[in-house]
Amino acid sequence: MARTVKPSGPSFYDPTMTRYSLVPRKEIKRRISKLQEALRSNGIEASFWIQKIDIFYLTGTLQRSYLFVPAKGEPIHLIKKDFKRGVRESGIELKVPIRSRKEIPPLIRKHYGKLPKTLGLETDVLPVQEWRMMENLFEGCRLVDASSLLLNLRSVKSPYELGIMARAGRVGQQVYEHGRRILKEGMTEIAFAGEMMAKAFALGHEGLLRMRSLNDESYCWHILSGKSGGIVSYINAPMGGLGLSPAFPVGASMKPIQRHEPIMVDFGICLQGYQIDETRMFCIGSLPKRYLDLYHSIVRVQHAILDATRPGIRGKDLFEVGLEVAEREGISDIYLGPPDNKVSFVGHGIGLEINDPPFIAKRDETPLKEGMTFALEPKLVLEGEAAIGIEDTVVVTRDGIRRLTPLRQTIFHASLK
Amino acid sequence: MARTVKPSGPSFYDPTMTRYSLVPRKEIKRRISKLQEALRSNGIEASFWIQKIDIFYLTGTLQRSYLFVPAKGEPIHLIKKDFKRGVRESGIELKVPIRSRKEIPPLIRKHYGKLPKTLGLETDVLPVQEWRMMENLFEGCRLVDASSLLLNLRSVKSPYELGIMARAGRVGQQVYEHGRRILKEGMTEIAFAGEMMAKAFALGHEGLLRMRSLNDESYCWHILSGKSGGIVSYINAPMGGLGLSPAFPVGASMKPIQRHEPIMVDFGICLQGYQIDETRMFCIGSLPKRYLDLYHSIVRVQHAILDATRPGIRGKDLFEVGLEVAEREGISDIYLGPPDNKVSFVGHGIGLEINDPPFIAKRDETPLKEGMTFALEPKLVLEGEAAIGIEDTVVVTRDGIRRLTPLRQTIFHASLK
Repeated sequence: MARTVKPSGPSFYDPTMTRYSLVPRKEIKRRISKLQEALRSNGIEASFWIQKIDIFYLTGTLQRSYLFVPAKGEPIHLIKKDFKRGVRESGIELKVPIRSRKEIPPLIRKHYGKLPKTLGLETDVLPVQEWRMMENLFEGCRLVDASSLLLNLRSVKSPYELGIMARAGRVGQQVYEHGRRILKEGMTEIAFAGEMMAKAFALGHEGLLRMRSLNDESYCWHILSGKSGGIVSYINAPMGGLGLSPAFPVGASMKPIQRHEPIMVDFGICLQGYQIDETRMFCIGSLPKRYLDLYHSIVRVQHAILDATRPGIRGKDLFEVGLEVAEREGISDIYLGPPDNKVSFVGHGIGLEINDPPFIAKRDETPLKEGMTFALEPKLVLEGEAAIGIEDTVVVTRDGIRRLTPLRQTIFHASLK
Repeated sequence: MARTVKPSGPSFYDPTMTRYSLVPRKEIKRRISKLQEALRSNGIEASFWIQKIDIFYLTGTLQRSYLFVPAKGEPIHLIKKDFKRGVRESGIELKVPIRSRKEIPPLIRKHYGKLPKTLGLETDVLPVQEWRMMENLFEGCRLVDASSLLLNLRSVKSPYELGIMARAGRVGQQVYEHGRRILKEGMTEIAFAGEMMAKAFALGHEGLLRMRSLNDESYCWHILSGKSGGIVSYINAPMGGLGLSPAFPVGASMKPIQRHEPIMVDFGICLQGYQIDETRMFCIGSLPKRYLDLYHSIVRVQHAILDATRPGIRGKDLFEVGLEVAEREGISDIYLGPPDNKVSFVGHGIGLEINDPPFIAKRDETPLKEGMTFALEPKLVLEGEAAIGIEDTVVVTRDGIRRLTPLRQTIFHASLK
């Protein structure tokens, strides 16, 4: 029955109505086949996926559903809501309607023939209540972690994925150029963020940046002018900004932006679920020479790290390159945070979630591979005074990197009048 | 030592720089004391809080930290990052720096005298990996759920909290009136959302709406014009809209808005962490009579439910009132979703998270209390055609309700030229 479902209802993919493109079937096939290889080489009989971003990566839809992927055999996509929409969007062949969790074991028995002996689950994100339900449903199975396998697969992007990220980069370029044109003295940071958001939305930005975490959440309006840049907060970043209240103590605030202040604009873009991240310094009128010198120093740090990037090098090696150049430039004390509050990474993987592997970090031992994408963001914090930095998203190529953010590397000067 | 910490560094609460108001100490004292009562009456010796919204509610800061609250005795606020900022913002008296989880048991032993026999944790949100760490750290303690206790406390708002929500309501009013003025034929839904977002940001909206869930995420740009309103998606709502891609398949899309279409604008606002939610119908030019009739019907459903609301009544009773009026109005088949895809709630609690209790839902047995807040959103879905609805946020008073969203109850007509 499942295979013969013909979705009825409105044709909401009507191209005359809107753009809305599905993930190609062959992309899904490739991902599933890579996951199955990974399951086999790790001796895991099958995996079961619940978290929405993992589901989206493996099926092409974010509709509420579960996905069973055995190491050998056909994946089963159990779709709850909206079923018709899930059927249209999912690249998995076997699509089965499900109403409640209790139907999971009988449906797996029916289509896979039995329950697996070992089952991989997302231990990094599944809440303990959900885990206990899975323990009950799969009584007798050994439950193990599968998230790390999938995160590794996700870290290497296909040409299709890189194409979307490059488009997101071009959207970012338009948003930043727009920001430079409309920025005016006296605007609050958050009002300026709103103007950039409006432009980004009009170009198809999806608004939310996703983060795999209980307590972190991502936002794209990290706009810190002058003193705001000198404020640290709870996020794992060199600076957090003031934010709007203790309930949202990061990013743009109600502080009015003044002339000659260094303004850090870190505004990520998301298209079709894929994110790029980038930072440029803005200034209304001219930037005082001291800040300009620091900006040139931090650009040299970024270039040195990118020059050293190639397949095989580890995140920790690149982190080390950054430290060395910072030392040579005489900016070690303010590099990656104030002296007593530094972060231990200078770049993070990026794709469907903004804390994807790899990490360009003090302790990351994983060798980079061709096709991995990351955002490299060396930053300086002058505590109580300002922040200076730069950020681009790149992909590791056969012999180096390619930028996915085509934004010009310069100070974005807004007019004084 | 902990008590004598004098935060140094920049005075980022400088009132000449920005607005940024702290949660009053007596508010925190009251919350802690209510939690301690609840722990005692449930026989739980102590509770340990990790999730950021719970931490914010109980301490007044979102800085990275843990909170230990015994049923009797002094709470201990273990602050990780940023320590100085956490010390300034937290309303807990005993503030202790912590670097790693390993220090949790010795610090509790030091300040509480021992480890508790029973410890309440957030089982609904804590990932299983985190839970296992807690099992190791608190070996020998019985770990139980404490989330439900706190969610119940959170559902009843103080005058301070209601004041913030009412301010959020007034911000929403300005954002909707602005939307009516700038809406033009041919704008895409998402571009219109961006213009409302820019206005909301300028007025201090915090941009993200928070939701307590692994797989749900909240966004405020739920703007569905014409056919978009007739599309169901994965979210627990009568309609989802098309969205921008299968990776963000809800809310505003790239569809251009046309004249005479019913346009559903459901745009929540967040101030100081507190949210209000509201929906109005917009139209460019005149709305065809058929839709206008449906709008009047759904307004009558909302009024009937609000008229019946008072302390003591249960969510399921109010849900039943809605069903009865929908029946009388002859709209049962399209009420709360298409015939085969209806939701079983018509309202949701709201405050720091958008899926807070109480629920005005088919199965909610909890009697309402004075001070509870909820968003009431009866909606109609004409599958493949449009959505019609209304939504307001209210607080339960001694003898009825008070609206926290002062927006006029009318169709918001934008000009045709």
